[in-house]
Amino acid sequence: MKKNYRAILQYEGTSYQGWQKQTSTDNTIQGKLEKLLSTLEGKPVEVHSSGRTDAGVHAYGQVISFLLECDKTEKEIMDYMNQYLPMDIGVISLVQAGDRFHARLNATGKIYRYRVLNSSIPHIFDRRYVHQIEEPLDKEAMKKAMGYLEGTHDFKAFTSKKNSKKSTIRTIHQIEMEEKGEELIFTFYGDGFLYHMVRILMGTILEVGLHQREAESIPLLLEEKERSLAGFLAPAKGLALMKVFYD
Amino acid sequence: MKKNYRAILQYEGTSYQGWQKQTSTDNTIQGKLEKLLSTLEGKPVEVHSSGRTDAGVHAYGQVISFLLECDKTEKEIMDYMNQYLPMDIGVISLVQAGDRFHARLNATGKIYRYRVLNSSIPHIFDRRYVHQIEEPLDKEAMKKAMGYLEGTHDFKAFTSKKNSKKSTIRTIHQIEMEEKGEELIFTFYGDGFLYHMVRILMGTILEVGLHQREAESIPLLLEEKERSLAGFLAPAKGLALMKVFYD
Repeated sequence: MKKNYRAILQYEGTSYQGWQKQTSTDNTIQGKLEKLLSTLEGKPVEVHSSGRTDAGVHAYGQVISFLLECDKTEKEIMDYMNQYLPMDIGVISLVQAGDRFHARLNATGKIYRYRVLNSSIPHIFDRRYVHQIEEPLDKEAMKKAMGYLEGTHDFKAFTSKKNSKKSTIRTIHQIEMEEKGEELIFTFYGDGFLYHMVRILMGTILEVGLHQREAESIPLLLEEKERSLAGFLAPAKGLALMKVFYD
Repeated sequence: MKKNYRAILQYEGTSYQGWQKQTSTDNTIQGKLEKLLSTLEGKPVEVHSSGRTDAGVHAYGQVISFLLECDKTEKEIMDYMNQYLPMDIGVISLVQAGDRFHARLNATGKIYRYRVLNSSIPHIFDRRYVHQIEEPLDKEAMKKAMGYLEGTHDFKAFTSKKNSKKSTIRTIHQIEMEEKGEELIFTFYGDGFLYHMVRILMGTILEVGLHQREAESIPLLLEEKERSLAGFLAPAKGLALMKVFYD
């Protein structure tokens, strides 16, 4: 009888080709997890996450689910995983879940965080986790841009995926900006995010902060739905998946 | 006319063979700095620090001094260093100092920090900076041990250096322990520390916390002055030089 497990995963994305397993490389988070759990189980195990993260993106609260037949306890499975996973991947909680729980299909919301270091001085201990910008940033203009982006919109201009037939309408409940020393920490809370969406939102907000575009250009962007009109793809290393919500 | 400079340096020690330059490797902090400044100056430049740090030890506030003839401004020298130093070494301030300032000879005190993660769960984002201990630690016993170590003592038992004719008497003004989530952060403030001294102090305090020795054994240790009676050498990665004091 297979049991369904739900776990919270942390990883530093720096060394990986992102979440999703690939045939061309075994250097993905999903690849590492499936290999390990398949060894434990003695047969192939599939691991689902709340969603893919790009190469270089970090996770503090990624949620995964998988089925196992083995009769180990929750603690034994978690300890086994933490013993054999690479040092930059860790399981911080693991519990048995209802049979119908699925980390991606049941997710109802997510929080991503993007860290910008606005300084000319390096913060070497944070170098893997912040995007550094030396030029001054106009915080008021960025807040205005953030306001235009909140709400339910068609975010087609804010994804790198082309010609998908799936809906590109999403709801951003809130975008916040917190100042912490020389850092600006942006938090994106929404019901879901398209491929590259947070990084393109961030790139667009930063272009407003750098006075390379007007905050007022954003409503038009949302209307035109054209990727080439939106901002640059902000670097992966500044981004982290913080929390996934379920009902 | 040479000018004397004083700078505050940060580095992540993980990838280096410590501060001090060596003939066998160029992978030292001092080696990297001297090579860079010698290129800037067009002739050999010697860089002094407040003291050596071991391989793997980090610095948030190492102080260095060096003489340069070049006519660049303070900001230009600092920017040049940050541009060409490896990503895990950074200069956070640089000013011209009096001719007689010497980073090591003028130092009057130092603060070191040691981070212990007391958990069975990995904190993957801190893995390079904490020493993880899964077993419970007796905080009251450790505080008692810390109290015995404060003050002016002959710390000969707490150094790996043998047969030096130099004095091994030092004053520890204060040892503090702060709890922060699952971390115990130890702060050592003293007038100076011998080779390996903080790591052996920490190893001894941790052995008390693990009930492998009594806090009351410490006065005898200080009296016997015998390295083999003191605790283990706590791992380098938990240690960081935080601040150096000058009059």
